[in-house]
Amino acid sequence: MTPLVPFVRSPDNGPNAALVDALCRAAPDLDVRVLGEIAPERLHEVTVAIADGPSEGQLARLPNLRLVQSTWAGVEAILPVLPAGVEVARMVDPRLAETMAEAVLAWTLHLHRDMPRYARQQRNGQWIVHELVHASHRRVGVLGLGVLGRAAVETLRDHGFDVTGWSRSPKSIDGVECFHDGLDGGGVDALLRRSDIVVNLLPHTEATTGLLGAAAFAQMPTGSSLINFGRGPTVDDEALLAALDDGTTSGASDTGSRVTGARLDRAHLEHAVLDVFVTEPLPEGHPYWSHPRVTVLPHVSGPTSAETAAVIAAANVRAFLVDGTLPADALVDRTRGY
Amino acid sequence: MTPLVPFVRSPDNGPNAALVDALCRAAPDLDVRVLGEIAPERLHEVTVAIADGPSEGQLARLPNLRLVQSTWAGVEAILPVLPAGVEVARMVDPRLAETMAEAVLAWTLHLHRDMPRYARQQRNGQWIVHELVHASHRRVGVLGLGVLGRAAVETLRDHGFDVTGWSRSPKSIDGVECFHDGLDGGGVDALLRRSDIVVNLLPHTEATTGLLGAAAFAQMPTGSSLINFGRGPTVDDEALLAALDDGTTSGASDTGSRVTGARLDRAHLEHAVLDVFVTEPLPEGHPYWSHPRVTVLPHVSGPTSAETAAVIAAANVRAFLVDGTLPADALVDRTRGY
Repeated sequence: MTPLVPFVRSPDNGPNAALVDALCRAAPDLDVRVLGEIAPERLHEVTVAIADGPSEGQLARLPNLRLVQSTWAGVEAILPVLPAGVEVARMVDPRLAETMAEAVLAWTLHLHRDMPRYARQQRNGQWIVHELVHASHRRVGVLGLGVLGRAAVETLRDHGFDVTGWSRSPKSIDGVECFHDGLDGGGVDALLRRSDIVVNLLPHTEATTGLLGAAAFAQMPTGSSLINFGRGPTVDDEALLAALDDGTTSGASDTGSRVTGARLDRAHLEHAVLDVFVTEPLPEGHPYWSHPRVTVLPHVSGPTSAETAAVIAAANVRAFLVDGTLPADALVDRTRGY
Repeated sequence: MTPLVPFVRSPDNGPNAALVDALCRAAPDLDVRVLGEIAPERLHEVTVAIADGPSEGQLARLPNLRLVQSTWAGVEAILPVLPAGVEVARMVDPRLAETMAEAVLAWTLHLHRDMPRYARQQRNGQWIVHELVHASHRRVGVLGLGVLGRAAVETLRDHGFDVTGWSRSPKSIDGVECFHDGLDGGGVDALLRRSDIVVNLLPHTEATTGLLGAAAFAQMPTGSSLINFGRGPTVDDEALLAALDDGTTSGASDTGSRVTGARLDRAHLEHAVLDVFVTEPLPEGHPYWSHPRVTVLPHVSGPTSAETAAVIAAANVRAFLVDGTLPADALVDRTRGY
């Protein structure tokens, strides 16, 4: 009999027809169906489910569930709604690493070439040229050197930036200085102190919650910037807003003459590019929306590619059904949290 | 006797002390001085001058001038103020090609990753995700394949974009389809018709003036974008503004719900990134300043690097003084205009 594999997604997230279609194409040997369309008397058949942001209670409806294959790289949203004794596999998609590395390069170049400042000047009708820093003198620090972080630092290095990285376990990457000694100081501080642009790609765990707070921002050089493409709770929002406003007479504009000899406001942190937030979508009225030194993105740095994710999810589900195995880098350590 | 070499720059452009200092360091064997600081009775000694945006009449004060070494890559501003019979050498700086290629990559990624649209959404407090196009499906067309254009298409190609180029004379570049048949149609149209992003790097000549006008924009696909890092007069400003407004009910905002199911305005041209203008600085009140689909940059895509330009200018001046020679790629063909 064709195994019944539910596609489980919170109604709050809306449908994801593109991914369901891609899964059906990628797995003609499996009976993939949206959870709500499965007759209640058949739910006991299910041993493996594909989850795309499930809500509380959805997975608990499957009494014989053994594995959840997530379509997301991050698993902090699924762990709280995962029934006891069920394994979870994250999505490890090379396409995602490539997409994320491109986003890191795109937004690092955005900051490197002073785009936020030129955008502010345009709003004020100001024609002021700022000296260009050569990429080899632009120090970029990446927090997190897993599959995504490694692709990101390699892309940044190949472009010519001066790149360092930090990860919990020691890593070795050609042309990139890698720190690793302890979350609460040491390596992280060494990276923060020498980075013009800090890129966060860390997972959300207890240890990373609030890691980028007042103490961390104080370590970063004046005029440096932050990119958060990891997870929202890693950043202390109040501390970030304070660091972005610190030193400016007005957050709203550079002051000075229209063309030359401008005196420019300089905040302690120049800019933050934020793609992830504690609550998503970012609530209406949140101060980030209107802050002139904050770029708000709707979680688009590393989108799931339906085509490639479907193929990977189908392969993992198939392997697990046949002999209970999973790729080592996909299986999540529930106690570690990633 | 140490040759006297004036540094000639329009007072309208303000001083450029960094470049004068760099020239003095790079050419201790030459007596480099700001034109205004040379005694009138010594002006007849001068056979070679270094020009950094000279004004009408400044070069005419040098009766025995034979060569002007410009510190700029473009020479359209110097040709009208160049006395008859005087040769002019442009600045050919490998550092400039690298800097320009970086700018082309940075702003192509800016458009590729939908940054202008996400910025508009942020202003409206909208959390809407748009599908990501893979770089291999993003068609980028570069007009101009000289030293700068070649570096740009190679960088874009290496990043994975689908790249074509056009130049007046035939070129061959690995992995890049190169068009070349005629300014008024053919190759240029073929490039425009298949490009999601058009990057202009052409010099300003009679043939390129107004090249990017209504007819050109009509060839470009709906939703495509323009980057002008070449020269201002290549773009017909009124036609560009019309193409950016064509099809939008309001130029100011995307409409629709805050989070999902939005109906998005789509202009014929999605966005223009403009770094060069007919008049620079861009005059106060120009419609570009406040247009929501235009990014105004103050001519910063390919800034002169004082250090490297000074070394190159000094070497050219020295060679010309010794035996009257110049690097072939530096000498400008006054009839061709570049």
